[in-house]
Amino acid sequence: MPEDRDRKTVLDPWGTTVIEDYDRLCEEFGIQRFEPLLGRVPSPSMLMRRGVIFGHRDLERVLRAMERGEPFAVMSGIKSTGEFHLGTLMTAREIIYFQRQGAEAFYAIADVEAYEDNGIPLERSERYAVGNVADILALGFDPGRGYIYRQSRELRVKDLALLLGRGVTLATMKAIYGERHMGLYLSSLIQAGDILLPQLEEFGGPRPTVVPVGVDQDPHLRLCRDLAHKFRRKHGFVRPSSTYHRQMRGLDGSPKMSKRNPMSYFTFQESLKEIARKISEAFTGGRPTVREQRELGGVPEICPVYEMCVYHFTEDDGEVRGVYHDCKTGKLLCGEHKERVIEAVLGFVREHRRRRRGLIDKAREILQVT
Amino acid sequence: MPEDRDRKTVLDPWGTTVIEDYDRLCEEFGIQRFEPLLGRVPSPSMLMRRGVIFGHRDLERVLRAMERGEPFAVMSGIKSTGEFHLGTLMTAREIIYFQRQGAEAFYAIADVEAYEDNGIPLERSERYAVGNVADILALGFDPGRGYIYRQSRELRVKDLALLLGRGVTLATMKAIYGERHMGLYLSSLIQAGDILLPQLEEFGGPRPTVVPVGVDQDPHLRLCRDLAHKFRRKHGFVRPSSTYHRQMRGLDGSPKMSKRNPMSYFTFQESLKEIARKISEAFTGGRPTVREQRELGGVPEICPVYEMCVYHFTEDDGEVRGVYHDCKTGKLLCGEHKERVIEAVLGFVREHRRRRRGLIDKAREILQVT
Repeated sequence: MPEDRDRKTVLDPWGTTVIEDYDRLCEEFGIQRFEPLLGRVPSPSMLMRRGVIFGHRDLERVLRAMERGEPFAVMSGIKSTGEFHLGTLMTAREIIYFQRQGAEAFYAIADVEAYEDNGIPLERSERYAVGNVADILALGFDPGRGYIYRQSRELRVKDLALLLGRGVTLATMKAIYGERHMGLYLSSLIQAGDILLPQLEEFGGPRPTVVPVGVDQDPHLRLCRDLAHKFRRKHGFVRPSSTYHRQMRGLDGSPKMSKRNPMSYFTFQESLKEIARKISEAFTGGRPTVREQRELGGVPEICPVYEMCVYHFTEDDGEVRGVYHDCKTGKLLCGEHKERVIEAVLGFVREHRRRRRGLIDKAREILQVT
Repeated sequence: MPEDRDRKTVLDPWGTTVIEDYDRLCEEFGIQRFEPLLGRVPSPSMLMRRGVIFGHRDLERVLRAMERGEPFAVMSGIKSTGEFHLGTLMTAREIIYFQRQGAEAFYAIADVEAYEDNGIPLERSERYAVGNVADILALGFDPGRGYIYRQSRELRVKDLALLLGRGVTLATMKAIYGERHMGLYLSSLIQAGDILLPQLEEFGGPRPTVVPVGVDQDPHLRLCRDLAHKFRRKHGFVRPSSTYHRQMRGLDGSPKMSKRNPMSYFTFQESLKEIARKISEAFTGGRPTVREQRELGGVPEICPVYEMCVYHFTEDDGEVRGVYHDCKTGKLLCGEHKERVIEAVLGFVREHRRRRRGLIDKAREILQVT
C-alpha cells in the first residue's frame, strides 16, 4: 500500500495524536530504540524494563556521564491544567528515577503552555500547580536536589525564549508544528527555555540533560536540540537528550487517555468510588462470554487494565508475566483481574493522598503561593 | 499604469522602506490625514504645523480626552542600537510634546528588538540605553510624570506579550510582517505589550494612548490595535491611537537617513567637526552653477539641508518660509545656507551635550544600571 507508506505521521504536542506503530515512528523521526541501551542503564525502572520507554535521543551522552560519575541533569514538567493522573505519574516517576541516579532534577510547571494551549489564565492554573507539586513531592522528588518552578515566574526561562527566538525561522516552526497561533509558537520557545535552563551557568552550566516525555512531546525536543546546537558557541549548550514513553490506552477502549474523555482516565483526586467504577467499567481484552474466554484466552495486548499493571501497579516482573500468562490461557477472567487492579489502585491512591496532604504547605512554599 | 497601481506598498518596521507617496500610503493602509485635525490640537508643535506629522489613527480619541481634561497617555520608544540622531529626536520631541499637554508618558528602550532585529546582546545595548535616556531627559522629558524602562527588564511587558500571543494567528503575522524569523514576531508581540502597558491597572488602567512613530512602525500599531480589540472584554483595553511622521532624507541625497549609510546622518555624539563636514558635504536642491541657481532658484523640496530647518532647527515658521522663498528665487545659495544650518546644528548639539552630561547619572538610576 504505497499510499499508506506515504502517509506522514504528525506528532502534535498540543493535540491528540494516536500512535499506532512505534517502530515506524522511530524510523520516521529518527528516534533511537531504547532497548539496546537497557543493559547500560543502572537499576532500570519498571517503565524501562517493560518497554514502556521505547525510544530516546542521545541518551548515551547521559549514560556516559552516569558511568563516569560526571554531573548531569533531568528535566521535565507538567501542564497545570488539572490533577495528577496516570500519564503525569509516568513522567514524574521518570524524573525521580534519574534524580535517584544522581541527576540534578528540574520540574517545570508549564503554566504558560496551560494558557497558550488551553486558555487557562495564570491565576487559575496556580491552584493546580500547588497540587501537582505536592504530588511529585509525595512520589519522592527530593526538592533538596531539584528545582521546581512555574514558567510564568522563571524570568530566565522567558529570557532564554527571547534569546532562542532569533534562531528559529518561520519555516522551521511550520515544519515542526504546522500552522498554529503565535501563542503556541511562543510556548514552544518557552519550553526550549525550560529544557536549556539547567545548562545556564547559575544552574551548573552546560551538561548532559535527559528529558523524559511522552513521545508526542518530541517536536519540542527537536526544536530545542536544534537551538542548543545553534547557540552552542555563545552559550556552550550541549544538545539535550530525551527518553520517550508509550501512550496509555484509555480505560474506555479509546487508543489514548485524554482529558477530553473523562471515562478514559481518572485523576488521583477523584472519589475512590468513582475510580473503582471507571476501572470496573473499563474496556478489556476479554472475550464476549466466559466460555470463550476460558477456551481462547484474553488479549492483554489491547487491554487497558493489563496496561495499568504493566505501567504502574505491579512492581514484580514475574507477577506481570504471570498475569499475562493466566490471561492468555483463559485462567484469569477480566472481572477477577479488575478486582485485583482496583484494590492495587485504591491502595496506591489512598497512600498517595495521605502523603500529599502533608506536603501541600511545602508545595505552596516552593511555588511562593500565599 | 495599471502595473504600478497594483504594486503593494510594503511597510517594514525592520527594513529600509522608502516612502515615495504619502497620500497613496494613507489610502492603502487606511491611515487618516493629520491636517484636518490641526485646528483641534492645542499649541501644535513644529512637526505638526509643518506637515511632518502627516497621518494618524484614531487621534480624535486622544484629542477628546485632552479637550475634556480626561487622562490619556503617550507611549513610544527607541531601539538601543546607537546614539541619538535626528530620527530619534523626532519621536522624543513628540513624546515630550504630549507629556507637556498633560499625558502620562512612557518611553521604552527596545533592547529586546535590538537583539532580535540587530543581534545586539542585552549586555551590550545597555550602554546605548543609558545614553538614550540621558538624551530624552536633556530634551525635556519629565521623569516625574513618565515611566522609562527597558523591555528586557519590564516583566509586565513580557507577560503581556505572552497573553497577546494567544490572540494572533500565523496568517495575521505573515500578512502584517511577511515571513520573518520567530524572534522578530516575538519582538512585535513585546512591542504590543509596550503599547498596552499604560493601560494596565497598575499604570492607571484603560485610557486613550497616543503612539507617535515613524510611519514604517505602523505594522506594530495595526497588530496592537487588533489585539487591544480582541482582549477588550477581559482587560478593557482601548485601541491605541498613533501619529506618523515623515522619513527624513539622507544628507547624502539618499531618500532616507539610515544607519547602513554613515554619510546619510549624524549622531549627537560625533565630533562637531565631523557633523559640520557631513552637512557641508551634504546633497542639496541646488543647481550645478551659481549662475543657474541665481537664475532658476533652488529646489528645497528635495533638499535635506532645507529639511533640517523644517524638521528641527528653525523654530520660527516665518523664518522657514523666508528660507524657502529665498532659495526658490535664487537669493539664498547652498553654501551660505549650509553655513547657517551648521551653526544652528552645532549650537544645538553643544547645548544638548552639556545638559546630557549632567543627566547620565540620573539615566543610570532610572535604568538601574550599576
